[in-house]
Amino acid sequence: MSSSSAWAIEQQSRKAFADLKVVCLAGGVGGAKLADGLARALAGDQLTIIGNTGDDFTHCGLQICPDLDTVMYTLAGVANVETGWGRQGESWTTLAEMTRLGGPDWFRLGDLDLATHLTRTHWLAQGKTLTAATAHLCAQLDVHPALLPMSDQPAPTLLETDEGVLPFQDWFVRRRWQPIVQRVILPADVKATPLVMRALSRADIVILAPSNPFVSIDPILNVYPIREMVADLPQLVVAVSPIIAGTAVKGPAAKMMPEMGFANSAAAIADYYADLIDLFVYDQKDAGILLANDPHQLCTNTLMTSPAERERLARDILQTAVQLLQETS
Amino acid sequence: MSSSSAWAIEQQSRKAFADLKVVCLAGGVGGAKLADGLARALAGDQLTIIGNTGDDFTHCGLQICPDLDTVMYTLAGVANVETGWGRQGESWTTLAEMTRLGGPDWFRLGDLDLATHLTRTHWLAQGKTLTAATAHLCAQLDVHPALLPMSDQPAPTLLETDEGVLPFQDWFVRRRWQPIVQRVILPADVKATPLVMRALSRADIVILAPSNPFVSIDPILNVYPIREMVADLPQLVVAVSPIIAGTAVKGPAAKMMPEMGFANSAAAIADYYADLIDLFVYDQKDAGILLANDPHQLCTNTLMTSPAERERLARDILQTAVQLLQETS
Repeated sequence: MSSSSAWAIEQQSRKAFADLKVVCLAGGVGGAKLADGLARALAGDQLTIIGNTGDDFTHCGLQICPDLDTVMYTLAGVANVETGWGRQGESWTTLAEMTRLGGPDWFRLGDLDLATHLTRTHWLAQGKTLTAATAHLCAQLDVHPALLPMSDQPAPTLLETDEGVLPFQDWFVRRRWQPIVQRVILPADVKATPLVMRALSRADIVILAPSNPFVSIDPILNVYPIREMVADLPQLVVAVSPIIAGTAVKGPAAKMMPEMGFANSAAAIADYYADLIDLFVYDQKDAGILLANDPHQLCTNTLMTSPAERERLARDILQTAVQLLQETS
Repeated sequence: MSSSSAWAIEQQSRKAFADLKVVCLAGGVGGAKLADGLARALAGDQLTIIGNTGDDFTHCGLQICPDLDTVMYTLAGVANVETGWGRQGESWTTLAEMTRLGGPDWFRLGDLDLATHLTRTHWLAQGKTLTAATAHLCAQLDVHPALLPMSDQPAPTLLETDEGVLPFQDWFVRRRWQPIVQRVILPADVKATPLVMRALSRADIVILAPSNPFVSIDPILNVYPIREMVADLPQLVVAVSPIIAGTAVKGPAAKMMPEMGFANSAAAIADYYADLIDLFVYDQKDAGILLANDPHQLCTNTLMTSPAERERLARDILQTAVQLLQETS
């Protein structure tokens, strides 16, 4: 297609999406990629990303928010695409010296990444909320969509495993998510922030990113009243499967499905979210699967192997969603 | 002198000092240099350094102990000799990124230095004492004399200045010790550790290093029962003047003397410590000064411009001290 006709289509789709308010619930890598695609397809004030903070932890005195950082770095164009975490062009001077000093080196603190943790911890120590600290970091990194932590309260996810109850990062990083998960323990009485509630109140579409349902999306939905608002308010709720042909692009989702008593398939993901969603998006490798609760479907390439592919998937989802909204209005 | 005769002299002086137990009370640069000289003249188990922790502070979540680190880095041979703080061969990747992120950059966190702060903070968070964390860091850096924090309790030094009461690092680093000091405020009820008390109990000689008397040595003496033990127990107490011909080699000592109501001279330092000391060491540039309370005197080159000069000064002090001990026994 000529670039002028590509431009014309882009203008048209921008116009089609111009009034949409979209909220994306996102964990780490998969969530970050879809959030980036949405950020490319929408104006900054149309998109809000609600990030999982269930895997946040304190390490060497630093407040570390791995999922928020993955989303922030991805939106800022400074994420390390190979590893799926941390910064591109990272160096490891401090970590090498920590190893020499006998300090903990199981969590890979890069020199650039450290600046984020130190700056965030400083602001939290000054009394700023995590929401404010995240907004400040995003502003400095020229990230325009609102990236909101699900809560300003600590909300640590714990894993009940065959090796006992483990804090999230102990299981995920230190033990490389190998212990078998019997149950995910989410904290009671965690409250969403006013900005999260305002974003959900205004949203036309809520998208559950292709993140791990148990340790990325559930921890967000567990924060009161996010699940209730997602269930009742938006015109359309979309879920994107993190499972493609029985595997996860990144992380433990595929390993966890059978551990948690589910089939390891996109259909099982659709089933898991059945009460919430109107539209289910899954990969073309799974074409022909049967979805039990019969939501609307979009079967497409969901791999997002490049920024252009992130944007293409986001536009496909938004276009399908807009059509559904028009049909039902 | 031939190296074999140098070796003979060293063996002789090692023998002369072989049974001595020496404790050195040390602040930052001057204390670190003398401690290093003493470490070169004595076996590791003969020397204990009690470090000032009055300038410790929490920054971006990290527990930072500037004086302990200066002593530790100097003894390990990894100190930055030009700046008087931090590591040699330091890099600044994280700090540059913190500046970009709008984080606090007034306290210069080097990449190597950060490893110390992170590792220490980790161990403190694990429940280790500052004494244990310091011992662990020293072991990893092959530092053999015992370096003991004066206390495991926080003991922050405050400065009452013409700009109000300031925490130590705010005055010292952020405001480059420019506000005029009216009074140094030391905390009440801080207790020394058992290891500090054992070292003072065993000491033949206690040396007050050429550190700032108001903000380096006084904070140590202020910790109960360090002043009482120094006054009553050791056979000999030595002070080395941080003032040479009315100037301080490093830091605010010379500026503070008149601010605190004293003459800016080595003699005033001797006077300040008069109740405690038996031997006063001062620089040859001040030869001929009159000392009011008539302690024993050693007038020599105290500048310590090289490791060899640090050791030479240490040996001069020890030799004079041993002579005095022999005369009085």
